[in-house]
Amino acid sequence: MRAEENATEHAAESAAESAAFGVESGVGNGVDPHGGRPVVPTRGVHRPLGMGEVALTGGFWAKLQATNATATLAHCEEWMERLGWLANFDRVADGTTGQDRPGWSFSDSEVYKLLEALAWEYGRSGERAHDDAVRRLTARIARAQDPDGYLNTAFGHANHPPRYSDLEFGHELYCTGHLLQAAVARLRTYGDDELVAVARRAADHVCATFGPDGLPGICGHPEIEVGLAELGRALGQERYVEQARLFLDRRGHRTLKVPFGIGSGGYFQDDEPIRKAGTWRGHAVRQLYLSAAAVDVAVECDDAELLAAVERQWTNAVARRTYLTGGMGSRHQDEGFGGDWELPPDRAYCETCAGVASVMVSWRLYLATGQLRYADLIERTAFNVIATSPRSDGRAFFYANPLHQRAACEASDDDDEVSPRADGGTRAAWFDVSCCPTNVARTLATWHTYCATAGERDLTLLQYSAARISAQLGDGRTVEIEVDTAYPHDGLVTVRVLRAPDGPMALRLRVPAWARGATLAEGGHQHPAAQGLAVVDRELVAGEEIHLTIPTSPRYTWPDPRIDAVRGCVAVESGPLVYCAESPDLPAGTTLDDLTLDAATPPLERDGQLLIRAFTTPHPTPGPPWPYVPAPAPHPPDAAALTIELPLIPYHQWAERAPSAMRIWLPARHPEGP
Amino acid sequence: MRAEENATEHAAESAAESAAFGVESGVGNGVDPHGGRPVVPTRGVHRPLGMGEVALTGGFWAKLQATNATATLAHCEEWMERLGWLANFDRVADGTTGQDRPGWSFSDSEVYKLLEALAWEYGRSGERAHDDAVRRLTARIARAQDPDGYLNTAFGHANHPPRYSDLEFGHELYCTGHLLQAAVARLRTYGDDELVAVARRAADHVCATFGPDGLPGICGHPEIEVGLAELGRALGQERYVEQARLFLDRRGHRTLKVPFGIGSGGYFQDDEPIRKAGTWRGHAVRQLYLSAAAVDVAVECDDAELLAAVERQWTNAVARRTYLTGGMGSRHQDEGFGGDWELPPDRAYCETCAGVASVMVSWRLYLATGQLRYADLIERTAFNVIATSPRSDGRAFFYANPLHQRAACEASDDDDEVSPRADGGTRAAWFDVSCCPTNVARTLATWHTYCATAGERDLTLLQYSAARISAQLGDGRTVEIEVDTAYPHDGLVTVRVLRAPDGPMALRLRVPAWARGATLAEGGHQHPAAQGLAVVDRELVAGEEIHLTIPTSPRYTWPDPRIDAVRGCVAVESGPLVYCAESPDLPAGTTLDDLTLDAATPPLERDGQLLIRAFTTPHPTPGPPWPYVPAPAPHPPDAAALTIELPLIPYHQWAERAPSAMRIWLPARHPEGP
Repeated sequence: MRAEENATEHAAESAAESAAFGVESGVGNGVDPHGGRPVVPTRGVHRPLGMGEVALTGGFWAKLQATNATATLAHCEEWMERLGWLANFDRVADGTTGQDRPGWSFSDSEVYKLLEALAWEYGRSGERAHDDAVRRLTARIARAQDPDGYLNTAFGHANHPPRYSDLEFGHELYCTGHLLQAAVARLRTYGDDELVAVARRAADHVCATFGPDGLPGICGHPEIEVGLAELGRALGQERYVEQARLFLDRRGHRTLKVPFGIGSGGYFQDDEPIRKAGTWRGHAVRQLYLSAAAVDVAVECDDAELLAAVERQWTNAVARRTYLTGGMGSRHQDEGFGGDWELPPDRAYCETCAGVASVMVSWRLYLATGQLRYADLIERTAFNVIATSPRSDGRAFFYANPLHQRAACEASDDDDEVSPRADGGTRAAWFDVSCCPTNVARTLATWHTYCATAGERDLTLLQYSAARISAQLGDGRTVEIEVDTAYPHDGLVTVRVLRAPDGPMALRLRVPAWARGATLAEGGHQHPAAQGLAVVDRELVAGEEIHLTIPTSPRYTWPDPRIDAVRGCVAVESGPLVYCAESPDLPAGTTLDDLTLDAATPPLERDGQLLIRAFTTPHPTPGPPWPYVPAPAPHPPDAAALTIELPLIPYHQWAERAPSAMRIWLPARHPEGP
Repeated sequence: MRAEENATEHAAESAAESAAFGVESGVGNGVDPHGGRPVVPTRGVHRPLGMGEVALTGGFWAKLQATNATATLAHCEEWMERLGWLANFDRVADGTTGQDRPGWSFSDSEVYKLLEALAWEYGRSGERAHDDAVRRLTARIARAQDPDGYLNTAFGHANHPPRYSDLEFGHELYCTGHLLQAAVARLRTYGDDELVAVARRAADHVCATFGPDGLPGICGHPEIEVGLAELGRALGQERYVEQARLFLDRRGHRTLKVPFGIGSGGYFQDDEPIRKAGTWRGHAVRQLYLSAAAVDVAVECDDAELLAAVERQWTNAVARRTYLTGGMGSRHQDEGFGGDWELPPDRAYCETCAGVASVMVSWRLYLATGQLRYADLIERTAFNVIATSPRSDGRAFFYANPLHQRAACEASDDDDEVSPRADGGTRAAWFDVSCCPTNVARTLATWHTYCATAGERDLTLLQYSAARISAQLGDGRTVEIEVDTAYPHDGLVTVRVLRAPDGPMALRLRVPAWARGATLAEGGHQHPAAQGLAVVDRELVAGEEIHLTIPTSPRYTWPDPRIDAVRGCVAVESGPLVYCAESPDLPAGTTLDDLTLDAATPPLERDGQLLIRAFTTPHPTPGPPWPYVPAPAPHPPDAAALTIELPLIPYHQWAERAPSAMRIWLPARHPEGP
């Protein structure tokens, strides 16, 4: 939405565009005629498909979605009940709040993210149990809301600190933001109900308290902004979007006090206004939630400067501050971005939540600009960060996602214990700070909506899964297709046209940036398909098949020489998957430290395994007393080296067999290289 | 000292040994007949010289000592007055403690470390002003002591949390430990006085509270142990040593609660008993203070198992967890040791205090064992960590000491502001947590006592400075020498015998482990001198000169290939100094990222400058959108590379000219190497 002075013009334009795109026609009602989606911009290059238009029918993501639905959602509710995070709401309602309140100040947000996940999952599957859960949780939350709309179980009641007395770390507005996002999910997949009413009152309270004439504060953890922006457009409440814009522009003037040891300035992104910042810095999830909100506000307010700022920051951070996995956050210290080129694989933080938030930003940028680089990063991050977090049973999670685990953890975390750690090494059932499980849950429940978008006369396939899509184009025509693929394990994508619209349309298929030698077979012809889009622009015929073949043979990938931490190393990728070497696959008596990959020999596939050729040079024990010596180490292969074939596994599968040592970047011997 | 059951035996043995070594003959009085020293073991291979026996007469360390005396000590007192850390004592005395108490809970310890530094400095120089300062501060501290000996300005009084209510992070015993160390310095350089009386009462309180029948707790930050052990031997109070032993053995049973995000277990060294641990882990300063105390207790209690444990941990940590500079601590997150081989140069923490604490441990181990490797590490750490911290004017300090600064800080810290940062980049006048300035101060004031030790019939020179030494050997004879040298800038060390004892004695000169081709010229002969000891064992002649020549021509040093973070890089050292490339020395238009060192060409010295040959390959701007590519980067020299001669500077001098980018480890092209 535009700023208020343009409201009238806007209303007319917006109505026209909404009609064109078919978005939220019932503004004020908010139910999504397309079945619900996480991001519904009022304008944009592409319209995201809703849950009523796309469904996964099998494969990689369908399996993760099923596990999420059948295991993770209940797992999260059980843990929050067990730890008293849910009962915190009851205690506020009953007036029994005490100093013994369990959980961090932001534990409410986990309940809201679970609610959001449940709402989306109900929208996806229609399973009654998820609707029941939404109602059950909503009832407890609603009781805890104060008459003026304030809702928080850690502040503002007996034995609590006063409301908004710790904007830096109190997370009150952050929690409210997640409440609003939960309500948006409910609204779009079900309709107005008690949860939406609670959120509306909470949003009104925020606007009344922090509006232009209210407190001038901002929250230490961005999130309220994206919640307000989405609720604003879902309910047609422009003032919510305006409040989000106000929070965004208030930020960057050093009003938040940065604690000792957390690094300088940027932690809260309060060191520099978002319109001026050159790149992403500070706490990664904070930065990325803020950026997602900025895109929402830029689109709604037609604010090209703000959109350009986020695009610039994305460009610079992706070029210099992002891991091969798509992971973001190089520092454990502040869960933050490091400097340019500071990308240590062993101490990579790559918080799962930062992966989720990165997808939130990139998706919004794709919808606003149509640039495929955003979809490329979504794919990389989804397969190598988000899919890495949950254990295959959906009941344990990685919080951090390092690219190198030097030594196997002594034992797996106990599934019955809360993990005090955010480090990688093993997946934990629950964390003291447990933001990641619910973030994975809400993302997986909506994953299919990131697979395709519709335009005026085109359908774009962005992420490849076996799926069925029935989409309305902007011009009102409908196209129905079935996608058949074993992607990412195989690069053949077959699109079967089930229902073709009258007249020509464009079927656009993303060819990932990593792909080399892709081909498109359609209408009896085969064409090379360069990275970007493979387009079939003609009248489609019901029953015809279009085949996109994206070679997924394994390949070596080399780092920019400025990434000091992986100098002299190479990684192996296959399709969108990053691979790793893991200790259970090593020959007896060998460790990951002993390996040098022979980069003169390409990686190969045999019997479904990806294999590399490597030299192993065991280091003497106990080794030198001082590790800095007058001559460089002899370079393998030397007399002591053995040559082995070592299987690699997809990174997202690591630590599933047992606690392990693991590395993505392998020291390499290359005929031409360093 | 031995445990209590052996007290009688011990007393006899101890008296004999004390007589042999001439140590603290007036047990119970505590004044050090040798003029005062930080560590006075009851037994050991070597006797540390006291301030009455050794004085620096010029050169590198004399200059730092002078700056410390004339600038740093007053600087520290001024800051603590200004911030109210001193007034905290007045407020306890006056009963006006409030919730607005300034400073962290451990700010008292800074006052005590300053007191310790002042006491040593008074012992070194006899300057009245330092004695006045000791009295001035002692008077204020003494007023704040409770009748039962408890002394702390953050706990136990009106508006304070109760005593010992936060053993993890309250730092009460930590503060007391520093008080005891201050009293030890006063006792040994001046004698019993009010400060000693305060410390004695505080130590008695600790023994009464935490003794075998008292609270079973331990302090989250070790320090009380080393304070008790030293005060115990200075006062001949075996029960203080016994209490230190009790604290040591209580540790390692997971009684301290580790907070979220601080990593697992080892942070407090409470995960495993010190006798069992294989290496150093967790918070570096905590670990090293604990280890120092363990050596003290092992020596006093003749506990070979405990001594062997610390030696084993030292060996493993030095081999795999120590930086080229001697710095320890790879992680900002917990100011801690990382895993084996986890030694990132850019995010090296290498806290100045950990350098100080490492010297404390190594010195004790040298005195206990006589092994020169401990003196080698002391030299490396002193020149490259401790000397790096203070700005040349002694009024600003590095807290962290990274080996790679990617980008120059935007501006120097304001000398009038408290720095909230512990990051490197620029030296700060004072810190929110300001442990490093006073730690540097107390170390510099005693530095000369680490230069030499006496044995039964030998004098060992360990660290080379222009100095005058008059030492009593164990057999009662006296030797007096003058050392003349420009070390570390030149490796010629001339020892002039001023007074020779009757009969033969051994003059032993340490040849550092890094030295190649050293020679010893004495009595008209010249001998090669291998690393270790160059020994002159004969009757010395007053007036004769002995020359040790240690080549300090610059050399390349290569890392163990398991240190992933510096793979393919080389460092340059000269003598004990680590060198670095710093941005002000780069050709215009070049950055440190553009450099590749030509390791086929040795480093050279010209006109007092150390120069390397390097290729520069400027990277295109804006650079690739994604930093992971299908082919390795071309290896310099390529067509685009220019060859330059680049001056390097000693690492300890970096960031003195202006905020700068800097790196020690330089990507290298080597004919044989990677």
